[in-house]
Amino acid sequence: METTKEVRLLRRPTGIPNPSDFEIRESPLPPLDDGEVRLRSILLSVDPYLRPLIGKAEAIGQIVPGSGLAQIEESRAKGFREGDLVRHFGGLRDKMNMPVAGLTRFSRRPELSLTTQLHALGGIGLCAYGGLIGTGQLKAGHQVFVSAAAGAVGSLAVQIAKLKGCYVVGSASTPEKSDWIVRELGADRSISYRSQPVAESLKAAMPKGIDLYFDNVGGDHLDAALPLMNQFGRIAVCGMISSYADDKPGVKNLAEIIYRRVNIQGFGFTDFDELQVPFEREMSQWITSGQLKFFDTVLGGIERAPEALIGLFTGRNIGKMLIQVSNETV
Amino acid sequence: METTKEVRLLRRPTGIPNPSDFEIRESPLPPLDDGEVRLRSILLSVDPYLRPLIGKAEAIGQIVPGSGLAQIEESRAKGFREGDLVRHFGGLRDKMNMPVAGLTRFSRRPELSLTTQLHALGGIGLCAYGGLIGTGQLKAGHQVFVSAAAGAVGSLAVQIAKLKGCYVVGSASTPEKSDWIVRELGADRSISYRSQPVAESLKAAMPKGIDLYFDNVGGDHLDAALPLMNQFGRIAVCGMISSYADDKPGVKNLAEIIYRRVNIQGFGFTDFDELQVPFEREMSQWITSGQLKFFDTVLGGIERAPEALIGLFTGRNIGKMLIQVSNETV
Repeated sequence: METTKEVRLLRRPTGIPNPSDFEIRESPLPPLDDGEVRLRSILLSVDPYLRPLIGKAEAIGQIVPGSGLAQIEESRAKGFREGDLVRHFGGLRDKMNMPVAGLTRFSRRPELSLTTQLHALGGIGLCAYGGLIGTGQLKAGHQVFVSAAAGAVGSLAVQIAKLKGCYVVGSASTPEKSDWIVRELGADRSISYRSQPVAESLKAAMPKGIDLYFDNVGGDHLDAALPLMNQFGRIAVCGMISSYADDKPGVKNLAEIIYRRVNIQGFGFTDFDELQVPFEREMSQWITSGQLKFFDTVLGGIERAPEALIGLFTGRNIGKMLIQVSNETV
Repeated sequence: METTKEVRLLRRPTGIPNPSDFEIRESPLPPLDDGEVRLRSILLSVDPYLRPLIGKAEAIGQIVPGSGLAQIEESRAKGFREGDLVRHFGGLRDKMNMPVAGLTRFSRRPELSLTTQLHALGGIGLCAYGGLIGTGQLKAGHQVFVSAAAGAVGSLAVQIAKLKGCYVVGSASTPEKSDWIVRELGADRSISYRSQPVAESLKAAMPKGIDLYFDNVGGDHLDAALPLMNQFGRIAVCGMISSYADDKPGVKNLAEIIYRRVNIQGFGFTDFDELQVPFEREMSQWITSGQLKFFDTVLGGIERAPEALIGLFTGRNIGKMLIQVSNETV
């Protein structure tokens, strides 16, 4: 019988997840039912949004959720053939039987790297573009702060804001990443938040205040940004990775939004249907012309999925965090 | 020589101000300069926004700021005559010499009570109306939560939301005030936040979630409202009286704005120029027809101004907090 290796949650993580919160379990895969396909994972996507999902009581004992790119190995569904590529939300495992209803077909564009095509032109890219242009109402000349700027969404947001003619400051955990944000992404300034309190270094880096804060962090970053916001400035909230810790400290400077008339809006990439056309046009052009780069951190093997997930919260990745499950190039 | 009684700040308050943070000082008033008028206070307005102002180092030793209605006692300014009524931002004192540049003329409408005319049809009313209709984009049928609903702005916001056809829940410090919000203001439900944690009682009072939260409190109220917000719900932030304490705890549930696509917007009454006409029309009609009531808590004598200011933070007032400095009816 076919088997699969699955990443299962053994217990509810407290704060940053621990390797012992997970196990890799080999399980039998039953024969396919009608309307199902058997998928073999190629790439699995590991993202901060998984942290709140594995914090829920009902997640214990279950396969850790997640999306990925996979190839059909066997099909009992009409119109889906062996060898086809699909995107799925089937969780962190190397093989799976899936009904085709939740799958999205994927056509390889060989002129782009696979991860660029999947993510920069997918949900990650649309988060960065839509969060800035839609939610954030970005205009040329804006003073823009992007937190977690070495991350998947942040590294795109910095580059897009620069391409749109803004003054851009990014934050990252270490001095090395902070340097990288200026050198590789083209940010005007960057701050390293483990070596110095964010509030001080952000104030020094943004002498003209902040018109738009693209927030991936929350917590101390949000507290640092609020007193620097310009009148009627906007905070577009993509993520609050700091708030996934169990013992989070809380945001203290929210009253600033009254004096400064700040607007804070949470968003996700599904909010930007009306931006899909300009997004694909502009992003494709920036990518193929080399004006915008997409970075990723790829770990090999399903066994390393827990390490990848934990690494998101310890600052391990530059750009998108991925698991390459099979070595095949597609 | 003329003298005036002034409320001066002796030291920076920590948390809720203390009577010993203030002194009432009698000072001489110099003769008028050209372009100045001498004002005799009738009413002084005591509001939560004063708390952060007296928390600043530069406020120590100064007259506590504040606005009021006053009568001109003597004039050396063209077009301003003895007996005229004006609104000023001259601070908490019984008499003052003021240049006329910062004054606003006031015409008495005898069919309205003085405080209704000054506040319900002034900045307080426009805060409630504009915060709901403009910032909050209130629609009939919305599920609306108003915190500090027995206060000046909150008590108007509850009534306006009811007049607009919404389900409305208000919060107040004590069970007595909580009852009053339902009985006098017409709220559907109310919660008393000193007797029970806000999160539990709010959840029970709003089974259909929250479309619009009119926030006067921040802190635990905001943390309670965030997980109850409906998708694309709005939080219109008028004040965060809980955050004026020095040892404020911080807001922990902000990540909810991502999953729930919440919009948070800080505002002030000066933001609603385009609503001035419908505001005056609707409010005047509601007030003269008796559909909307304006409540105030009036303490007599400039000596009681510190007590009034402290009372804002200990839940002493119902409606607008005022000092009546002179007994004259105008």
